[in-house]
Amino acid sequence: MATKTLAVWAINLDFDSLPASVVEAAARSFHNWAGCAVGGSAHPATAIARKTLATFAGSPTSSMLGSPDKTDAQTAALVNGISSHVYDYDDTHLATVIHPAGPVASALLAAAQMQNVAPVSGEDFIVGLVAGIEAACKVGLAVYPDHYDAGWHITGTAGSIGAAVAVAKLLKLDVQPMQWAIGIAATQVTGLREQFGSMTKSFHPGRAAQNGLLAAMLASNGYDSSLASLEAKRGWASVVSASHKLETVLHALGHTWETEQNTFKPFPCGIVIHPAIDGAIQIHNETKHQDLDAVNIHSVQLSVHPLVLELTGKRNPRTGLEAKFSVYHGAAVGLLFGRAGLAQFADDVATHPTVVHLRDKVRATPDASLRSDEARVRVDFGSGAVSEKHVRHAVGSLEVPMTNEQLEAKFVEQCAPVLGDEGARNASRVCWSLKDANDVGVIAEALH
Amino acid sequence: MATKTLAVWAINLDFDSLPASVVEAAARSFHNWAGCAVGGSAHPATAIARKTLATFAGSPTSSMLGSPDKTDAQTAALVNGISSHVYDYDDTHLATVIHPAGPVASALLAAAQMQNVAPVSGEDFIVGLVAGIEAACKVGLAVYPDHYDAGWHITGTAGSIGAAVAVAKLLKLDVQPMQWAIGIAATQVTGLREQFGSMTKSFHPGRAAQNGLLAAMLASNGYDSSLASLEAKRGWASVVSASHKLETVLHALGHTWETEQNTFKPFPCGIVIHPAIDGAIQIHNETKHQDLDAVNIHSVQLSVHPLVLELTGKRNPRTGLEAKFSVYHGAAVGLLFGRAGLAQFADDVATHPTVVHLRDKVRATPDASLRSDEARVRVDFGSGAVSEKHVRHAVGSLEVPMTNEQLEAKFVEQCAPVLGDEGARNASRVCWSLKDANDVGVIAEALH
Repeated sequence: MATKTLAVWAINLDFDSLPASVVEAAARSFHNWAGCAVGGSAHPATAIARKTLATFAGSPTSSMLGSPDKTDAQTAALVNGISSHVYDYDDTHLATVIHPAGPVASALLAAAQMQNVAPVSGEDFIVGLVAGIEAACKVGLAVYPDHYDAGWHITGTAGSIGAAVAVAKLLKLDVQPMQWAIGIAATQVTGLREQFGSMTKSFHPGRAAQNGLLAAMLASNGYDSSLASLEAKRGWASVVSASHKLETVLHALGHTWETEQNTFKPFPCGIVIHPAIDGAIQIHNETKHQDLDAVNIHSVQLSVHPLVLELTGKRNPRTGLEAKFSVYHGAAVGLLFGRAGLAQFADDVATHPTVVHLRDKVRATPDASLRSDEARVRVDFGSGAVSEKHVRHAVGSLEVPMTNEQLEAKFVEQCAPVLGDEGARNASRVCWSLKDANDVGVIAEALH
Repeated sequence: MATKTLAVWAINLDFDSLPASVVEAAARSFHNWAGCAVGGSAHPATAIARKTLATFAGSPTSSMLGSPDKTDAQTAALVNGISSHVYDYDDTHLATVIHPAGPVASALLAAAQMQNVAPVSGEDFIVGLVAGIEAACKVGLAVYPDHYDAGWHITGTAGSIGAAVAVAKLLKLDVQPMQWAIGIAATQVTGLREQFGSMTKSFHPGRAAQNGLLAAMLASNGYDSSLASLEAKRGWASVVSASHKLETVLHALGHTWETEQNTFKPFPCGIVIHPAIDGAIQIHNETKHQDLDAVNIHSVQLSVHPLVLELTGKRNPRTGLEAKFSVYHGAAVGLLFGRAGLAQFADDVATHPTVVHLRDKVRATPDASLRSDEARVRVDFGSGAVSEKHVRHAVGSLEVPMTNEQLEAKFVEQCAPVLGDEGARNASRVCWSLKDANDVGVIAEALH
């Protein structure tokens, strides 16, 4: 019944029944996603995808954020999914490590701009976004952690299903076609964790957006699939995970809201590094400038959740992309610069002698008694002085969420290189107006 | 090293080093695929896909077989992959149950018609086809049977990798981009066996063709992936299968040829039913007409490989599509009509009272001592007479392969409803000329 449960729930969802806190959380998710997608639009991975897809692209209905060009909805979904994730600066549903807006919003906005679908109101868009985020995160919860541990990039795999539900909701599909859409999405299991550290990691949310959009469109025209694609013996959950709890998790739909559990990264790197960076920045802010010189620091000792070293243990990152998977790099730039934004993960910072010098002095010890959003940072200065910080919950966690002002600053940091400072501030304002929009296409067109 | 081993082997492959028997086998695979793709072009699944994709389609470079319309290469790859598989009448690499031409030829022909790629000679096309079929079947062999037993439709999963290698070979990629193409394809794991019996089964080879084509195109423009996507700890083989033997299998590349092991279905249904149908047809041919009336048959007893009931045990198929997964239906129509072609798997035959009446008298017993291409068929007539057949190797097996004449008859059977009888015979001749073609696009354009 899991597939049908999800389909029926999504079909019955409407704006008026959404708690205000869920609407607000969805609006924050959209704003954060849009900033990331614009910010990532100039990245080589996005540029290569845009160039490659141009060969196949159809009538230009849908926006590629950060670019004045439109393209067909399939292509826009892939490109926006890639650009939203390429700096690892997007959102995180902590209980599953899914970055849900990448696949869901990328598919939804592209679909909302299609002929015969547009105009889509902000309220309808938010309903689709919530349906998709809930779908992705609930099915993700049902297979986490076995599925992730097996080596799947859950953002792509669960994200395909979320994207399908979002677009199917937008298209107002009935129960059976909604089940087909879920089935066609579920059969496209996209994303191996082996791709972390390469451009293909960002391909996952982009392809997931396409998977879901295509699934919903095919289903809307009568392309059928199994009606039990999620829960059948050889269905999605059993094939992709050693165990699952689909029935339990899906029965909580509408009672607990995963959209409210979505968090936003303050730093463009693996989220498990954030507590160490947070502690390093706190120490930077309390330390005299001259003491922060790399040569004046004797050693840096981190105590971190064991997953940190498994996911982000790169000792000698050679590129900005690799540096995102190095807790050593994160701590070093936090200490040196008092921040860890896009600039601190540029290629030339990853290989800068001063950064490398300090990075080599950082040691990290796994401590299973720590939560994944917790860390201890200890700096021994050559002078004999010692600074220590115990970060109980990193900034950007559920306990210490990014404020709307912090989200806005992050948006502008990302978008200013593409849109200019004024353009970035204006785009941020337009994105905040989502709920009241008569046509979300107008918002999309403001994002370049 | 597996990913690199595959890449280097594919790059070094050239037409002159191919054994003549491999070239002949590839030509037969192409001919069979083309007939299936034309024959499946009018099926509702293909029609829905064509209609849905038209919304997104780009410049029309590539043929949708059986249709006068061209479309962009991505769309053509999907549509041709669906239509080639939709009647379950395509090829089978028996050791893996992969239908390799669906994903590989669909991607390759679509790519070969692209601007900046066309014209592609028949020889270059055959080299790409062999590279792709070898890649799909070798990586399939490396994970079979665990991967298939886990619930994956191996035609889609291994087929994506085969399609990527085929197109990457056509694009003359170097080693590293070829590894990226393999990686981007490997990360798109498409195909759950739960979809068997629905239109989404045919979606798998189509999407696999797209996956591979997109992967090769992205890689050709510098989109990178892990260089060890197949063999890494969290790479394809380990994530999708409980065990694998990648190294061993890939070292046999060029020593053993899977293309020669490709077989062609004489009947448009699950291949494991073929021995039972073969026996039923033999009994039909030796029995007087009046005895073959359903009411005059007392019982039909089949002894079959255990997989037959697992895969094709549908007792009461309600549609032609479901009938393809019913060994009972296959035996019944073989006995009644002396053939089991497309006509015998039509919806109105699946529900015809005479067929249902006889089908209900068929019993099947699993016998683990039988090979999967072996069966015993015993018919007890009401008169007291008994006919028995022991089919040691079904027609279409490696031991009793389809002759070129049988392939031609099958081609014409499939294509005549679309192209007319004369057109079908002409199209068959054009497809047999593949090796000598200066531009395979000319062949594609003859197939409507």
